[in-house]
Order: sequence, then C-alpha cells, then structure tokens
Amino acid sequence: MIIIMGVSGSGKTSLGKQLSLRMSKPFYDADDFHTPANKNKMKSGHALTDSDRVPWLLDLASKIKEWTLNGGSILACSALKEEYRTILSKFNNNVTWVVLNGSFDLLLPRLTKRKNHFFKPELLQSQLDTLELPTYGIYVDCNKPIKQMVQEVIDNIPDTTPATIGVIGLGVMGQGIALNSAECGLETAVYNRFVKGEEQVVFDFLSVNSQFKNLQGFTNISSFINALERPRKVWLMIKSGSAVDDLLDEIVPLLNEEDIIIDGGNSYFKDTRRRALELEKRNIHYVGCGVSGGEVGARNGASLMFGGSKEAYKNLSPFLKNISAKDSKGKPCEAYMGADGAGHFVKMVHNGIEYAEMQLLAETYAVLAHQMSYTEISSIFEEWNCGSEANYLLEITSKILQQKEGDAYVLDLILDSAGSKGTGLWSTKVALDLGEANTMMSSAVFARYLSGLKKQRMVLSDRKPTPLHTASFDIEKLKEAYGFSRIINHIQGFNLIEAASEKYNWDYNPSETARVWTQGCIIRSRLMEDLIGYFSIEKSLLNNEKILDTISKTEPNIAALLHHAIDQKIALDTYSSAYNFWLAICSERLPANLIQAQRDFFGAHTYQRVDSSLNEFFHTKWY
Amino acid sequence: MIIIMGVSGSGKTSLGKQLSLRMSKPFYDADDFHTPANKNKMKSGHALTDSDRVPWLLDLASKIKEWTLNGGSILACSALKEEYRTILSKFNNNVTWVVLNGSFDLLLPRLTKRKNHFFKPELLQSQLDTLELPTYGIYVDCNKPIKQMVQEVIDNIPDTTPATIGVIGLGVMGQGIALNSAECGLETAVYNRFVKGEEQVVFDFLSVNSQFKNLQGFTNISSFINALERPRKVWLMIKSGSAVDDLLDEIVPLLNEEDIIIDGGNSYFKDTRRRALELEKRNIHYVGCGVSGGEVGARNGASLMFGGSKEAYKNLSPFLKNISAKDSKGKPCEAYMGADGAGHFVKMVHNGIEYAEMQLLAETYAVLAHQMSYTEISSIFEEWNCGSEANYLLEITSKILQQKEGDAYVLDLILDSAGSKGTGLWSTKVALDLGEANTMMSSAVFARYLSGLKKQRMVLSDRKPTPLHTASFDIEKLKEAYGFSRIINHIQGFNLIEAASEKYNWDYNPSETARVWTQGCIIRSRLMEDLIGYFSIEKSLLNNEKILDTISKTEPNIAALLHHAIDQKIALDTYSSAYNFWLAICSERLPANLIQAQRDFFGAHTYQRVDSSLNEFFHTKWY
Repeated sequence: MIIIMGVSGSGKTSLGKQLSLRMSKPFYDADDFHTPANKNKMKSGHALTDSDRVPWLLDLASKIKEWTLNGGSILACSALKEEYRTILSKFNNNVTWVVLNGSFDLLLPRLTKRKNHFFKPELLQSQLDTLELPTYGIYVDCNKPIKQMVQEVIDNIPDTTPATIGVIGLGVMGQGIALNSAECGLETAVYNRFVKGEEQVVFDFLSVNSQFKNLQGFTNISSFINALERPRKVWLMIKSGSAVDDLLDEIVPLLNEEDIIIDGGNSYFKDTRRRALELEKRNIHYVGCGVSGGEVGARNGASLMFGGSKEAYKNLSPFLKNISAKDSKGKPCEAYMGADGAGHFVKMVHNGIEYAEMQLLAETYAVLAHQMSYTEISSIFEEWNCGSEANYLLEITSKILQQKEGDAYVLDLILDSAGSKGTGLWSTKVALDLGEANTMMSSAVFARYLSGLKKQRMVLSDRKPTPLHTASFDIEKLKEAYGFSRIINHIQGFNLIEAASEKYNWDYNPSETARVWTQGCIIRSRLMEDLIGYFSIEKSLLNNEKILDTISKTEPNIAALLHHAIDQKIALDTYSSAYNFWLAICSERLPANLIQAQRDFFGAHTYQRVDSSLNEFFHTKWY
Repeated sequence: MIIIMGVSGSGKTSLGKQLSLRMSKPFYDADDFHTPANKNKMKSGHALTDSDRVPWLLDLASKIKEWTLNGGSILACSALKEEYRTILSKFNNNVTWVVLNGSFDLLLPRLTKRKNHFFKPELLQSQLDTLELPTYGIYVDCNKPIKQMVQEVIDNIPDTTPATIGVIGLGVMGQGIALNSAECGLETAVYNRFVKGEEQVVFDFLSVNSQFKNLQGFTNISSFINALERPRKVWLMIKSGSAVDDLLDEIVPLLNEEDIIIDGGNSYFKDTRRRALELEKRNIHYVGCGVSGGEVGARNGASLMFGGSKEAYKNLSPFLKNISAKDSKGKPCEAYMGADGAGHFVKMVHNGIEYAEMQLLAETYAVLAHQMSYTEISSIFEEWNCGSEANYLLEITSKILQQKEGDAYVLDLILDSAGSKGTGLWSTKVALDLGEANTMMSSAVFARYLSGLKKQRMVLSDRKPTPLHTASFDIEKLKEAYGFSRIINHIQGFNLIEAASEKYNWDYNPSETARVWTQGCIIRSRLMEDLIGYFSIEKSLLNNEKILDTISKTEPNIAALLHHAIDQKIALDTYSSAYNFWLAICSERLPANLIQAQRDFFGAHTYQRVDSSLNEFFHTKWY
C-alpha cells in the first residue's frame, strides 16, 4: 500500500497514475472520497477544519484496509499532519509513504495554471505552514522529470518479503498454525475467503495479532498466492470434504510446478490419495499432514503426521520442525509416515484411539460418580495422573470435574448426548475393511450413538428404573482395570496402522509414531513414552514381555470391575470389549469352527481343517 | 437347430443355404466333416458302412450342441436311418427335422447332371432302400420351387416359446433359481459365459436336468437375450462387484426400453443405486432383489427382498411369487422394500443379523463345550428348537454337533478360523454411517477377525495358558440369556433398516419384512413369526410390552452368564454387547456429558445443556 503525500500542486496524481501503470495496482485520489459538503467548502475558498476531515480520513482508513487485503493500491492524499497519517494507517502498519517535496515558488505557478480545479492558490501557503514532514517515507523532489520520480519510488519501496508459508482458512486451527509460524520468525501469509459473515476475519486476525510484523493478510486469492516464495507451500486448514476439492479448483490454476499443497485438516485418507494422484499429473505435490493437539497444539506446537512425497517432505521438514511440539528429548514431534494418505490415516487412527480413551474415562467416571463427589473423583484422577497412567485426557478430566458455574458443577449442566465428527467412525470402518478387530474404538463410537437416544433412554428408564448403584468399587483395582484397557486400546490402534502400512506400502515406524504422539497431541501419555522403547525392540506389543506382564497382573482387576458393572447395571461396553479382546486373543481354541460349519451347511462355503494344509478347503455333505 | 435330411440329390444344400439367408443362422454341410478316408471311400464308389459313420455322427452331435448354445444353425445331412438321427440329437432334444422327399425317377437325372461331385449315381437306389422315413419332422416335396419349399419350412417350424425369465450365471444360486423357475412351469433361459473352465457348465446343467423341457441353454449372449419375451426379465446371479458392471456393459446394448435387469446377488446397495440411476437414462429397469436361503432356498423357495421401481415390481411380481418360499399362511415370502437399493440393503442387514445369530450360537457352544459332550449339546439345542427359541440356525447347529467322520466329530476337525464375505462388515459400516449402535453385528464380525489370528492366539495361549473351565452353567439360564440376546439383536437389526428407510425414503414395512423372513431364509425363527404381529401394532420393538417383559424377565440370566464367562475366561463379546446395549438404552443418564466436556475442553466443540434448548450450543472457558 503506497500513499503519496504532499501539498496541492506537488504532483501526487501524476506520480500516482504512473506508479499505478508501472506496479499494476489501482490508483485512487483521496479527494474523490470527500463528502459533497467538504467539497463545497473548499470550492468556496474555505480551508477544511480537522473535524471536517476526521470522518473522511476514517472512511479512507477502511478503504485502505480493503485495498490492502486485495493486493494493495496507490493513494494520493495530502496527509499534511502526522495526526492524519496515523488515522490513515490505523488498520495497516505497513503503508509505504511517498513524500513529494517542493517550495512555494515552484508550486504556485503550477497551481495557478490549473483549470477546472477547485483549489484556490491562496490556500497554498496555509498548506505549507500546516505540513508536518514525516521522519519516514520516500522523499521525492517534485521538480524532477516524472520517469525519474517513478524510478526513485520503485527503487526505494521496502522489499515485501515473500512468505515462507501461506495458510488458507482462519478457523481456530488455521489461526493457531499461522501464529505458531509467525512466532517462529517465519514470514507468514494468511488467506480467508471474503464471503458473507467472514468479511472481517482476516482484518480482525491481523489487528488482534498486530505484534507480529511478519503476518501478511489477504482476501484476494491471487495476491495471496503471489506473495509466497517458490516453490510455494500452501497450508490448507479448512473443512474436509468437498470444500477442499472446491478450493483446489480455485488455487491449482494459480500454482506452478513443484509447488506444495499441504492439507492439514482431517481429510479422509482415500480422498487425500485421490487428490495427490490427480495433482501429480501437474507436477504439484499434494500432501496430507495430520495435526493433533487442537487449538493449543496448533498454536504452541502440534503433533504432526506427514504423508506424501519424500521430495515435498524434504522441502517442508524445516517448517514442520519449527511448528511442532518437542518431545522429552527436545526432538520435534513430526515424522514422515509414508506416501499419499499415510499422514491422514495415522491421524485418523490417533482419533480412533482417542475415542476409546475418552470413553474409558467416561465409563470410569460413571463407576465413581455413584460412590463419591466430583471433587473426590477429580483428586483421584489427579493422583493417577502422577503415576503410570498419566495422560493428557486424564489431566483435563480432572480439571473438568472441578469446574463450577455458581454452585453447580458444569458437568452436571452438560447434556449427556455426545456428538462426533468423522474420524472415529472412519477408523472403525477402515478396521472393518482391513480385517482388524478394533473392538474398543467401535464400542466407543457406538456409545456416543447410544447417548444420542436421550428420549428413548428416558422412556425406558422411566418404565424400568435402573436400580440405584449401591456398592462401591475399589479405587486401586479400578486404576489397574483402566491401565489394562488402555494397553489393549493402544495394541488395537497400532495394529490397525500396521495393517494399513502393509497394504499401502507405507514407511510406518511404530516407535517413531509413538514418539510423535508423546507431545502436542491429545493422546499423549506416560504409556506413549514407554511405547517408544517397546516398539524399538519389537514391532508387536503382544510379543513384549513388559506389556504382557502388566496385562497379566491387572487382568483380575478388569474382571472384578466387569463383575461390579454387571451387578450395578453400569454399561461398560468399552471396558468389556478390552477384556473380551484379550480373552479371545489368548484362546488357543475359539468357537469359530462352528461358524465355519454353519457357513458350509447352509451356503457350501467350505472350510479348512486342523489335520490338513491351510490351502485346502473342504465341504461336508451334512445330514 | 434345423437338420435337413434326405437322399443325395434331394436338394438339402440348396434349401439349407436359402433357409440360412432367411433365418440368419449359419449353414453347414455334414459331408464336409467326413474324414478323408470316408471321402475317398465314397469317391471310389463304395458305400460307407455304419462303423465308418459312427465317429463322424458323434462328432456332428458335439458340433450340434455347440451350435445350439450359440443360437442354432442349419445342417444338411442325409441321416437316412433312425439310428443315425438318434446319435445326431444325442445332446439336443429339440432338433427340427426337415425331410426332403422325392422318387428315384425324379432324383436320378439331377444327380447325373452334377459335375465335380464325388457321388456315384448308382448308389441312389441303395440310399432309397436304406432310408427310414421318420414319423416326425417337416416333410417337403423336393420338386417344388425353392422359395415355396423355404416358406413351407418356415411356416412349420415349431414355435420356440419365448422364455419368461433369463438367468445369467450358473453357480449354485443361479442353478437353483433357474430350476425353481422351470419347476414352476415357466419357460426359463439360462446363460453362462463360455470361458476357460466353464465351457461345459450350460451343457452339463441341461443334461443333468433334462427332465425340464422348458429349460433353454445358451453360451451366446445375443441368442440368450433374443430368446426372452418382452419386456425381458434378465436375472443376474453372478459375483457382486466389478463383474456386474462388466456384464452390464455387455448386455445393455442388446436390451430394449422397459426391459428389466434383476440383480439377485449380494451387491452393495449403493452400487445398485448407482446402476439403477445410470440405466434409468436408457429407460431400462435395474432392480436389486435380495435372495436369502442359500442353495436350498434358491432351488425350493427363497425369501425375496425386492428393491427398485414399482413398475418393474408389478411386472416381476408373479415370477417372484412363484419362486419364493411360502409363509405359514401360504403367502409368498417376497415383498417390495422400496426404491433402488432397498432390496439389497434389507438383504445386507439380514446377513448382519445372521452374523450375530451365528456368533451367539458359537459363544453358547463355547460355554457348553466345557461342561458336556457334543451329543448332549446337540440334544439341548434340539430341545430348545421345539420352544420359543426355535430357529433354523439352531436346528442346523444341532445337526452339525452330531455329524461324525469315522470316530471324530466333524466339528473338531474344522479349523477355528472363520471367513467372511462382504455383508456383515458392510452392515456394520452402514450402521456407523447412519449413527446406529449395531454393537452385536460389529462384535460378531470382529470375533471372526480374531478367530483368524490363529498363530498369534496359539503363541499367547502357550505363554499364558487359559485355565481349564471347571464350573458348569445352568442350561435353563443359558437359554434365557440366548433369548435375551436374540431379541436385542433383532431390535438392532430392524432399527438399522428403519434408519436407512427414513434416509432414503423407502417403503419399508417392518411387519412385512419379518413375514418375508419367516420362511426360506437363514434367520427364520419362531421369534420372527412373533415379530410380524408385534410390528403391526408398534414400529419400535422397544415400545412393545411383550418384548420388554421378556427382556426384563431374562435380564438376570444374561447377567449370570456374563459373570460365569468372566470367571471362566470365555470370550463372550457378542453376549456382552447385547447386555451393555440394553443397560445403556435404559439409562436415563450416561457419562456422555464428560465426553462433551472433553471435546469442548480440547477442541472447543461446544455442548448442549440440560437447562437450555437443544438448539443452543455452549462453550466453557475451562481452567
């Protein structure tokens, strides 16, 4: 944004128009925005008072804001006093001022020659008297030939640093990533579409965060794309689904080969694979980066799961290291998970694990809420959080249990009807497709669905009141049952990624994934820290002695908890799933031989035998 | 297939060529297939002996079979003796014989005029002496003008009845449907592709089922399509997936407007919707018809779930009524479920319910196998099958438990690693998409997956041997737990169809669906009979007093069973899911308020409150 200032006759309009041509930015004359009343006053030879000027200057400031977001413009405006200039740059710290300087003797003849101009020459002296020359800006002698003046301005315009990264979408997550990036000292461009209800988003974001001089805001997509250094890195932080495809239609034509689009949202991994394949044809990298840690993680350091071409990763890696959380050894919580879709897949499973972790805490709370106060439960969770079960969700649950609104616990005011977005059900569906028994995340998703049937539940509960829970359950046993189930949950989650990695030939490394998940993300925990080491020895947790020892030791207590829940009629489906999974996976024999016999009986599906090769299939002629 | 017979000089070739032009079928001359030795013998003026002729006639019979499957042809062959004709029609009962008749005086001059022909005229009398005129066939005077002869043949060719239905694909299910249809007296065409390994399929099918004179077989797709009455009804019984799309590419160009394609396989309902939409543009009806009952049902009467246009249903209804099983009142077990995809959806959920029913029996068997012999379990199941729990799967399980191979029970020889096709996991995935808590079918699918981890199970079981089950469980309680869980399973299954029907605007009628499922299908049962009445009063089983009474009455016994399983370390995940579902759906309060608080804490997802409208969403600024 350039403002050319100076008294009347200094040549602001001529210079502005030439600069406009040279720089391909629109030119405006501030005088055109005066109110009719102001114009008449000037025509009649009276100087405007400051109170005449203020509304006009404020109006211009708003326009400057708008022009800036659209890629900037050139404005001619006398702006004689510092006070006026402060108003004009109210919404934009980065105005480049061009000061046209000239003496009374030089200017007067110019002015008197002018026709059809409402300026009365006798006002010139008064203007020169008023003029407060700024201590900044590009000074240009207005007596020089116009071409020379233009060149001087161009040569002296401060460089606009090309942005290292461009963030599209200023929701809470997008804002977090942009600020995180800016705070890391990276020149950061942000873009948000200029649509009804979102007109103010970029402006407000820049205003609130005006301490970051390395933030550039745009509502014009071309200007945004042009502000990025090549190869461009465009970080999408928008709603997953068709909005992503729509946006790609818009930006891809503006991009060049080798540019990188990073989808930081929770896109479905198969969509990411499809888009990557599509854009590969244009030699544009489309990569998916899972971001965990919510608002706070995005802002202060997230857990980042990258999936895409290795070339793009190499290019992005410094940026990812900058904005990621750091693990206990100071290493950035980001890693390469494999080719297209791997990052989003791993993030999806992260959320699937999270679903079960949340539900385990909810079921634990259900057990305890019948035997003690929220404050007491909170203390117990706080205590657990100092030991082997320490984890972020436990920590916030402890805080949630304390939160009050007046005399009431907030928890008691919240409707017991849980919502869900896509990732939990996606993980479960993918498990079904890959033949993996992810019983815990599926049970957690279904528990949310059941919670949504509030009306039905109330009708049935009314008809058939659940007896009040009377018995108490031992806290130490409960903690061990919780620990048992968390281990099973992590086994199921990591197994799911392993299965996908085999199917899609990804570079998934379980130890490295656990490490990335130790900070920044929602499922960070003491257990996750331990898993880094466990996985470095043995890919499968079911072959890890320490894990098996812990499971064996705590198994009697999950059994005890389930007995308690059956008697007290507390629905603990996720805890049950953990126990039954363990029983099944330890069973040399399962009754699946009967399933095979039934399938062969009614559908001639054939079966394998215990006394023959697994490649042979048999059919019995049943009675 | 037309064979023109008669002595030399009667004009078989001339008539055959003209008929070939008129009827657009290829013409062949039997003499062209003689061995060189036979040809030389005839040239040298010697008559062939019968032993010379037999291999040649057998070769021709095979060719006739092949030509017939390809739409038929016209063959000229003297075929003087009945014995020869029997060999020629060995593989085809439906040969039309055209007998060219003429006297020695008429024929001799014709023959002596011929040039380049190896026939010696002196053999004519011998031929006339040999000729056994058939008691069948179209007699044509060979002295008539050729055009008149052609017309006489055409006018007298017995009508080929156009087929009412055409079945594509002769796997066990396709064969069953075709025979079922033929047995209902319907003219039935079958087609199977002529590819490596399947060359004999149609021929063998017709040979084995030669008692059905109303079966027409084809390996040529155009001839098959042309053999069907209009509007055509083409019943696909082929592998679901891309094979269906490939087949459609092949047959659609051969079809006319208003023709109907019925997909009787287990196609995914969204594929059916897509295909129906696509073919609607050509005014061809593509409909999906779920077929349950396996091989036996297809052959003797299946349970049929129709989904597609009402017009197509009206047209197909008589056929469906014919081939369907009949309910206890003699009404056909077929019904209209709604528009595109509804039939396949309902069939898919049928299978989902079936998965859980099978797993419940497997878990019941697991409990009992530790306390008694297979013969005893079989007797118990047989007894149960006489009472309220009577159902087809229970019946076959009782039989399976008795089946022996030498001294061993077959069940003990079957590997305990269950396979699965698509429908169980599809149902669960659809439940996840529709927000329905189908915990039992999901648990049954996962149980199969876990059974597949045989190696892992053996390793863990070896390391950590599951204690031998020592305690016995009460049989009467077990039966009630089984009944309890079956009710929950049916509630979950029917709820899933209800949810889809609302989403897709289908005409689903739960009472009618239960009725269709009382015979022919795998999940037929006493309970299903009861559901017809329950659903006619009240759409939701959870509002039905009898259902609720039974559940309440049996609830203590499922609780007892689960206690037993926990102690005895028997994985009863599907039973557990039934109980936990019931506990949750009866709970006025569930701990989902904590889930909402957590989501709001880390992701600002907002929540609804107990003290506000459900349209309002709140966010707490957590500590």
